[in-house]
Amino acid sequence: MMRTVILGAIGAGRIGKLHTENILQMPGVRMKLMADPYIDETWARGRSLAVTTEPEAVFADKEIEAVLIFSPSTLHADQIITAAENGKHIFCEKPIALDPDRIRQALDAVAKAKVKLQIGFNRRFDPEFCRLREAVSSGEIGRLYQIKITARDPALPSIDYVKTSGGMFLDMTIHDFDMVRYLSGSEVEEVFAAGAAMIDRTIGEAGDIDTAITTLKLTNGALAVIDNSRQAVYGYDQRIEVFGSKGSMQACNRTPTRTVSTTAEGVITDKPLYFFLERYQESFRVEMEEFVAALREKRDPAVGGIDGLISTLIGIAAKESMERGEPVRVNQG
Amino acid sequence: MMRTVILGAIGAGRIGKLHTENILQMPGVRMKLMADPYIDETWARGRSLAVTTEPEAVFADKEIEAVLIFSPSTLHADQIITAAENGKHIFCEKPIALDPDRIRQALDAVAKAKVKLQIGFNRRFDPEFCRLREAVSSGEIGRLYQIKITARDPALPSIDYVKTSGGMFLDMTIHDFDMVRYLSGSEVEEVFAAGAAMIDRTIGEAGDIDTAITTLKLTNGALAVIDNSRQAVYGYDQRIEVFGSKGSMQACNRTPTRTVSTTAEGVITDKPLYFFLERYQESFRVEMEEFVAALREKRDPAVGGIDGLISTLIGIAAKESMERGEPVRVNQG
Amino acid sequence: MMRTVILGAIGAGRIGKLHTENILQMPGVRMKLMADPYIDETWARGRSLAVTTEPEAVFADKEIEAVLIFSPSTLHADQIITAAENGKHIFCEKPIALDPDRIRQALDAVAKAKVKLQIGFNRRFDPEFCRLREAVSSGEIGRLYQIKITARDPALPSIDYVKTSGGMFLDMTIHDFDMVRYLSGSEVEEVFAAGAAMIDRTIGEAGDIDTAITTLKLTNGALAVIDNSRQAVYGYDQRIEVFGSKGSMQACNRTPTRTVSTTAEGVITDKPLYFFLERYQESFRVEMEEFVAALREKRDPAVGGIDGLISTLIGIAAKESMERGEPVRVNQG
Amino acid sequence: MMRTVILGAIGAGRIGKLHTENILQMPGVRMKLMADPYIDETWARGRSLAVTTEPEAVFADKEIEAVLIFSPSTLHADQIITAAENGKHIFCEKPIALDPDRIRQALDAVAKAKVKLQIGFNRRFDPEFCRLREAVSSGEIGRLYQIKITARDPALPSIDYVKTSGGMFLDMTIHDFDMVRYLSGSEVEEVFAAGAAMIDRTIGEAGDIDTAITTLKLTNGALAVIDNSRQAVYGYDQRIEVFGSKGSMQACNRTPTRTVSTTAEGVITDKPLYFFLERYQESFRVEMEEFVAALREKRDPAVGGIDGLISTLIGIAAKESMERGEPVRVNQG
Repeated sequence: MMRTVILGAIGAGRIGKLHTENILQMPGVRMKLMADPYIDETWARGRSLAVTTEPEAVFADKEIEAVLIFSPSTLHADQIITAAENGKHIFCEKPIALDPDRIRQALDAVAKAKVKLQIGFNRRFDPEFCRLREAVSSGEIGRLYQIKITARDPALPSIDYVKTSGGMFLDMTIHDFDMVRYLSGSEVEEVFAAGAAMIDRTIGEAGDIDTAITTLKLTNGALAVIDNSRQAVYGYDQRIEVFGSKGSMQACNRTPTRTVSTTAEGVITDKPLYFFLERYQESFRVEMEEFVAALREKRDPAVGGIDGLISTLIGIAAKESMERGEPVRVNQG
Repeated sequence: MMRTVILGAIGAGRIGKLHTENILQMPGVRMKLMADPYIDETWARGRSLAVTTEPEAVFADKEIEAVLIFSPSTLHADQIITAAENGKHIFCEKPIALDPDRIRQALDAVAKAKVKLQIGFNRRFDPEFCRLREAVSSGEIGRLYQIKITARDPALPSIDYVKTSGGMFLDMTIHDFDMVRYLSGSEVEEVFAAGAAMIDRTIGEAGDIDTAITTLKLTNGALAVIDNSRQAVYGYDQRIEVFGSKGSMQACNRTPTRTVSTTAEGVITDKPLYFFLERYQESFRVEMEEFVAALREKRDPAVGGIDGLISTLIGIAAKESMERGEPVRVNQG
Repeated sequence: MMRTVILGAIGAGRIGKLHTENILQMPGVRMKLMADPYIDETWARGRSLAVTTEPEAVFADKEIEAVLIFSPSTLHADQIITAAENGKHIFCEKPIALDPDRIRQALDAVAKAKVKLQIGFNRRFDPEFCRLREAVSSGEIGRLYQIKITARDPALPSIDYVKTSGGMFLDMTIHDFDMVRYLSGSEVEEVFAAGAAMIDRTIGEAGDIDTAITTLKLTNGALAVIDNSRQAVYGYDQRIEVFGSKGSMQACNRTPTRTVSTTAEGVITDKPLYFFLERYQESFRVEMEEFVAALREKRDPAVGGIDGLISTLIGIAAKESMERGEPVRVNQG
Repeated sequence: MMRTVILGAIGAGRIGKLHTENILQMPGVRMKLMADPYIDETWARGRSLAVTTEPEAVFADKEIEAVLIFSPSTLHADQIITAAENGKHIFCEKPIALDPDRIRQALDAVAKAKVKLQIGFNRRFDPEFCRLREAVSSGEIGRLYQIKITARDPALPSIDYVKTSGGMFLDMTIHDFDMVRYLSGSEVEEVFAAGAAMIDRTIGEAGDIDTAITTLKLTNGALAVIDNSRQAVYGYDQRIEVFGSKGSMQACNRTPTRTVSTTAEGVITDKPLYFFLERYQESFRVEMEEFVAALREKRDPAVGGIDGLISTLIGIAAKESMERGEPVRVNQG
C-alpha cells in the first residue's frame, strides 16, 4: 500500500487554503500542520487541521517531510533556505525572489541539502496548455515556428501591490515566460519589450506599466510573442497559439457554461472564467499531485528551482529592454 | 462557342428582379422580354430591359425559348399550361398550385408539350445544404438515421398573406419537405404534425398556425423532424443536421461577418442573415445556372414538376395530420 | 455549527462509488455504512469506509438517517419500501420501477412513513441545463414555444441489458422526459413517438429500438421534441435548445479541452466528453448536496418520487404510441 | 440619371481580370479599352471587351477618364506618371514602387496633374475589417490599446518571385502595415521586427525571410503586433484583433461553408478560404466601387498615394530593424 506523505504548510491565505482543500482530497497525503500568523480558525477547524502561528513549528516537526510555502513573496527565499536546512522537501509559490542573487542563494541551499524543490508554475499543469505542449513535443504541429500568448487580467492591481510586485514583467508576465519555455522545450535568447501605462496613470507614476507586447527569440530558432494587459473589462483572458510546419493549435478561454443565447441583441456566449482561481482550478490540483508523486518516486519535480530563476532572468531582461528601448540578451542562469 | 439562351419572364417583383439581376451576369444568356402589369420602369431602363404589361407578348415571342414565372402563386398553374402550349421551357417559383389536381393538370401539359420544367426549390442549391447532401450521398456520414431541420422566419406574415398562403405547411414548411427528400434521396411515407398559433392569435383565427413540429417517416427507414416558427426575434434561423452511422453533419446559420466582440456584456457574434434573399442569395444564382445548363444540355433540370407535386402532397398530409391529431400517410404522387 | 448528517448506502458499484467519493468531500456528512454483496474491499479500505454484505444492517442502523439506494434497478422499489418502513429518508437512483403500480406502492410507503425521497434525475443539476431552466423561468427567452433535446449514447448497450431495461423510452429517454418537465415547468399531455431498431437488428429482435423521435404536447401549450440514438460514433451527444418569444438558448456539448487544431485536414475541436460519468460529473455532486440540504432544512428535495412516477408514465405512453402508431395521452399520475 | 464613367486598363492578368469582371457588373461604368501584351483573347471576346497590346492607346484615348493599372509592379511608377501627364485619374495596385524616392516622383506627378489616385489596399474594404474599424472609430471598444494581426500565406512564393519582391515586409506585410494605420487612425512611430527564413532555406539564401513578428509603436500610444508566415499548411490565415478599454473585437477567418462535421475523428469545420482572391473577393468589388464613387463625386478616394508611400516607409524600417537587430523609427513621409 502507498505510504502516507506528511506535509506542513507556511501560509494559509487564499492560495494556501486552495492547495490545502486539494490536498485533503488526495489519498495517502496528510497535512499535519499549518502556520499562519492570522489563521482562519473556523476554516481550519471545519477541516480538523492543526494550526500554529509559528513557522518554526513546521520546520521543526520531524514527521513533516515537505513544506509548502504559501507565504508572502518577500519571505519565500528565507523560508526555502530554512526548510532546506531542516532537510525538508519544498513546494514554493512563485516567485522565489525578485533578485536573481537571492534566488541563487536559495537554490544553493536546496542543492546543498539535496532536497526537492518545486516552484508553483501551475499553468504547466493546465489541461489546455498540456494539450498544446503535447502537440509540440509529439510533432503533431511539426517544427515549431511561433508561440503566441495573450494574457490579460480582469482588474487592475492596487497601487500598493504594484509597488512591491517587482513590476508587471516579474509579477504577471513571468508565467508567460515560463509557458514559452515549457511549450517550446527551448530557452529564450533575447527579449524585446514594448510597454506603457495606458490604462492607469498612477501605475505609470509608480514606475510600472499595465500593457505590453514582448517578443522573444528562442535558441531553437522559433519566435514567441506575449501580449499583456492588466485589465480586460470582460475578464481573465488566457489564450495561447502554437504554430508550426504542420499547422497550428490554439487554446481558447474556458467559460462557466457552453450555452449560446440568441436574442435580438446577438448571439451571446459566456465570458471567460473571471478569476485565476477558477480558470486554473484544475492545474492547482494537478501540480500538487505532481509534487506528491515526485516525493513518492524520489525524483525531481517537473518544474524546479532553475525554472523559477530563468523566468526571473527573462523578466529582468524584458524590463531592461523596455527601459532601454532595445532588445536585450537573456542571462542564461 | 456557347449558343445564347433567350429567356422571357412573367413577373418583375422582388423575386423577379433578383433572378433577373443574376441572369444579366450570366454569359450567353439574354433576358429578351419581361411582362408585369406594374413594372418598375426605372429599374428596367437602368438594365436596358424590354418590358411589356402583357404576359401574352412573352408567350408569343418565337425567339424566347424558356419562360420564367415569377408571378403571384395563384397564376402559376395557368401560366405553366400556357407556356407549355406555346412550346416554351419553364422555370416556375414554388408552389405550382395549392391543389394537387391543378398541379397534375399543369404537369400533364408540360409532359404533353415535352418541355422542361424546373421548380424554384432554391435551397437545394445552397452551398451549405449541398455539402450536407454530399455527406449523405457519398457515405461520409454512413447510413442515414435522422434529418433534423430548424426553419424559423424572422417576422410574422401579414394576415392577408396568411389567408391566401395555403397555410404554414404549404407555404413555409414545403421547402423543408423538399429538403428532406433532397438530403435523404428517399420519399416520405408518413407525417405526424403538431402545431398551434402560439405567437399570434389572429393567425389562429384565420385558421392557420405559426409554430409546428413535424415528424416524417421515410421509405428508406430514416426519420426526419422539422421544427418551424413564423417568428424568431433574432432573425432567419435555418439549420439542418444529418445524422448517420459514421457521424453527424450540421449546417449552421450564415452571418454577415465572422467578428467576435468580447465586452463586459459577453462574447457576442453576429445574428444570422436576417432575410431569405440575403441568406439564400447564392442558391438563387446557382439554381438559375442549373436551369440554363439543363436547357443547353437538353436534359431535365435537377428539380422538376414532380418535386413540386410531392412536396405539396406532404404538406397536405401534414395539415391533415395536425387537424386529425394522428399520423397520415402521404399520397405518393 | 452544522450538525453531521449520517448516511448509509445500498450498492457500491460504479454509481455508488461515484456518489460516495463526492460525499466524502462534503463537510458535515458521514457515510457510516455501505452494503454490497460484492464490495470492492480495496476501494472501501482506502477511504476508511465501513462495509457489509447485508442491506439489512444499513436499514437497521439507528444512527443512519438516510439511505442511498445505488443497487440494481429491480431492487429499488422493495428497498424504498423497506427504508421507509425503517423511518429512513431516501435517495434512490432512477427508475423506481418499470411498473407504475409498483412505483405507486413505493411512494405510498414513503408518504405513510413521512420520509423524504429524492430520485436521481441528476441532469436537473447540470450547470448547462440549470442555465436553460433559469432562462425559461426568469422570462429571459420570453414565453416558451419549443424545447428540443438531442440525446445520443456513445455505444450500444448489451442485449442482456436491453432485455431487462424496460426499453429505450423507460431506460434512456426517461431522463429527457424529466428534462422537458424541468425546463418547461409544465406537464406532458400527449406523446407521439416514432422509432426503430436502425443500428442493431438484434435490438429489434429483443423487442426494443435504438433510434427515436418523440414529440410532446405540454399543458402550457408549448411543444417539445426529443431525438434519441443508442449510438453516436463520436461519443455522448447531449444538446438542448429552448426557444421562446424573446429568443433561443442552446446548451452545447462539453468537451475535454477548448483547443482548436488547424491542419491540412481541417479545423478540429474536441469531441464531446465520452461518458455520462464525465459529462454529468458536476451534476452528481450537486444533486447529492441538494439531498443533504433538504435533510438539513427538513424540506422536500427538488426532485421527488412523483417525478419518477410521471416520467415513467410518459415513457409508457411513448412506447404505446410507437407500437400503435398514433399519439397517446399521458396518464397524469 | 448617373453619368457613365469610362475606364481603361493596363494589364489583364489575374488581378486585371478580377477587377474587370466586377466593373462589368457596375451600372454606369464602361471599360472602354484594355492593354496587355499577352491578352487572353477568348476571355476578352466573351465579355465584348476592346483590347490592345499598346498601353499608349489607353493613355491617349480622350474618352477614358481613369486608368486602372494592373501591370507588373516594376511598371507602376512609370505608368502612374504617364497617366497623370495625360490627365487621367488612376487606380493602381500596390506597390507604387519599392523605392520611396520613386514613389515620391509618382505622387508629385499626380499632384501636379491634379488627378485622383487610389492605391489597391483592398483589405480596407473587407467587411470583417470594416467592422473592426467601426468598432475602433465609434468608441465601441473604448480607447485602443492593442492591434494584433495574424497574416499567413497558404504556400511559399517561388524564389524568382522572392528575388524581385522587395522582401517579405514590402511584399506581404505591407498590407498589414496599412491595416494598422487604417484600424488605428494613427501613424507608426517605431518598428521592431524579428524574422528568419525558418521554412525554406533557399528564401534565406535569396536574402529574404519567411517568418516574422513585428511590433509597432503608434503615435496615439497604442501598440500593434503582426505575425507573418509565408506558409500555413492549412491555408490563408487572416485574423485581426483590436483591444481597448471597453473590450476586444476579433475578425476570424472566413470559410467556404458553416458546416460542422462530428465523427470519430473529432468535430471538424472548414479550413479558411484558401486563396486571397476568394478571401478578399468582396473587398475587391467594394474598393472599385469606392474609386468610381470618388470619380463621380470629384473627391479623393479613401486610400491614396500617401498611404502607399507610408506603408512602404514602414516596410523599409521593418527590414532595417530586422537586419540591425534593434527598433527603427519610421520616416514620416
